[in-house]
Amino acid sequence: MKTIVVDCMGSDKGSVVCVGGIKRFLELHKDVKIIAVGKEEELVGLKEVPNVEIVDARGVMEMTAEAMEAMRARDTSMYKAVMLVKENGYDGIVSAGGTGAFLSLAMMKLRTVEGIDRAALVTALPTYDGSKLCLLDCGANVDVTPERMVQFAKMGRIYANTVLHVENPNVRLLSNGAEDQKGTELIKETNKLLREAGYDWFKGNVEGREAVFGGTNVVLAGGFEGNIFLKTYEGTAKMMGKMIGDAFRKNIFTKIGYLFAKSGVKQLRHKMDYEAVGGAMLLGTNGVVVKAHGSSTEYSFSCALGVCYDMIAADAVNLLKEGIKNG
Amino acid sequence: MKTIVVDCMGSDKGSVVCVGGIKRFLELHKDVKIIAVGKEEELVGLKEVPNVEIVDARGVMEMTAEAMEAMRARDTSMYKAVMLVKENGYDGIVSAGGTGAFLSLAMMKLRTVEGIDRAALVTALPTYDGSKLCLLDCGANVDVTPERMVQFAKMGRIYANTVLHVENPNVRLLSNGAEDQKGTELIKETNKLLREAGYDWFKGNVEGREAVFGGTNVVLAGGFEGNIFLKTYEGTAKMMGKMIGDAFRKNIFTKIGYLFAKSGVKQLRHKMDYEAVGGAMLLGTNGVVVKAHGSSTEYSFSCALGVCYDMIAADAVNLLKEGIKNG
Repeated sequence: MKTIVVDCMGSDKGSVVCVGGIKRFLELHKDVKIIAVGKEEELVGLKEVPNVEIVDARGVMEMTAEAMEAMRARDTSMYKAVMLVKENGYDGIVSAGGTGAFLSLAMMKLRTVEGIDRAALVTALPTYDGSKLCLLDCGANVDVTPERMVQFAKMGRIYANTVLHVENPNVRLLSNGAEDQKGTELIKETNKLLREAGYDWFKGNVEGREAVFGGTNVVLAGGFEGNIFLKTYEGTAKMMGKMIGDAFRKNIFTKIGYLFAKSGVKQLRHKMDYEAVGGAMLLGTNGVVVKAHGSSTEYSFSCALGVCYDMIAADAVNLLKEGIKNG
Repeated sequence: MKTIVVDCMGSDKGSVVCVGGIKRFLELHKDVKIIAVGKEEELVGLKEVPNVEIVDARGVMEMTAEAMEAMRARDTSMYKAVMLVKENGYDGIVSAGGTGAFLSLAMMKLRTVEGIDRAALVTALPTYDGSKLCLLDCGANVDVTPERMVQFAKMGRIYANTVLHVENPNVRLLSNGAEDQKGTELIKETNKLLREAGYDWFKGNVEGREAVFGGTNVVLAGGFEGNIFLKTYEGTAKMMGKMIGDAFRKNIFTKIGYLFAKSGVKQLRHKMDYEAVGGAMLLGTNGVVVKAHGSSTEYSFSCALGVCYDMIAADAVNLLKEGIKNG
């Protein structure tokens, strides 16, 4: 039996989304126990559900809380959920609450596994050829070293293999040019370390405009640049999506056009679907830590639980430890 | 009379695009002399055109040439064109040749104007609300200092005002969060400098996903992060554009849908039109330096000449000098 702790408060749409997401998830997974943390009266919908334990918490973490505030907010569902994992060694944790607070708590309380200096935030993004690229670090660390980047590369491969089911995933380093000598000192040093180690999965540098067309399984970046990549990608995709909607709403003819083109547009929307990814994962801590989207729906929250489940089932934490130990 | 030197070789589509672009441009601008540099036999189409002088050059700069190779390639049209500006103090230069070589030559030969330590590459990108955002530095400097970032901010404002015709352009700093304390050391220090100077046009930090929706005239970034932003934007926009095309080509119904929706789709294409921007500008050197897209068409090459013309007409080089001097 696997045990996943769920912080049920703090998502944009309220605890109802988490309650629904947990139910959906449990219908498909009978070998999991869920510990749902939050205001008891909001979680009544889970009371009769088998394999669910409810833990009452009166406080809700502020969305904008930073590390120090998060550490003091001991009555919140988020703090309690993290402490439950820490004290009982449960397998995983999922929250749709504020990113800053959640990452800080997870990193400070759960600590990184042996051989990993820093945890990294990873997410998966749709590409043109239908595959997904796994991007890390997308924001957990603003300052990184080449040695830590190499650790990130290895963690990214385990994620791509376990969650995206890619065999022997390749890794490319995000830079301002495909040539090895391009980039900041960090990028050049990281490239050198990876080349010298002779990893056959390291395929050199990549530019953002190439990566989004597919063929790269893991895009490796420092937390700041990774975050710039992630948010520029998200913003541009959202902008184009809105422009497409506007184009069809322009006049009566374009509206008729939409009716005919619907199946094609739906295919596009499906391809660019973020929800199925469920959220981002913090890789490298003792326990599987999943940050669900703040704007999660029941469906995407259940997907976030699914990501957590896959990582636990694959024994990702131990895979990480071994992967790091064996170079 | 303004004088613009044009390197006519090195674009992906050959000199014919430059010849056509020059003709188009001169039809609308009678107060400009063009000095066209390249293989004489390829520029015969310009022979009878008033206000054009042809300078023969036998060599073509390699697309992948880096700084040192560029400095040695003295028989190339690019090298000759830059030297013509340097030796005669002509107003501007346009090239569709290799970016690395062109930027290196322009920076080393033309030198930066007084008060500017480093030149920065700037370009304009379409946003959702129909306005354009001006992004700099998008790749001229991998390593920057907060002081140079402040200079970039001022240069960006002059570009936004002169080329994009924005009155009193605002500036935001590209970061991983909107709060002042977010970002790398460079970003935090730059934010502090701009805040302390009390510039009313500095509006704090911005994330990529907000910037693309409009409202930010100048997006300020270090060369590496700016380049990541630019290429992720370009890649994602191109990917979505291709997905839209695929959606309409899916089957007979979607093809009919396209016929109805055509006017809306055209409006979208027009909004996302890169060609009208013409290319990127190197700001801060003695002379107006415009890098046209390598894949320029006649139309976009004439637009690049137009950008060069606007900057000369606005006396941008002197505006820069004064802007820097007056803090």
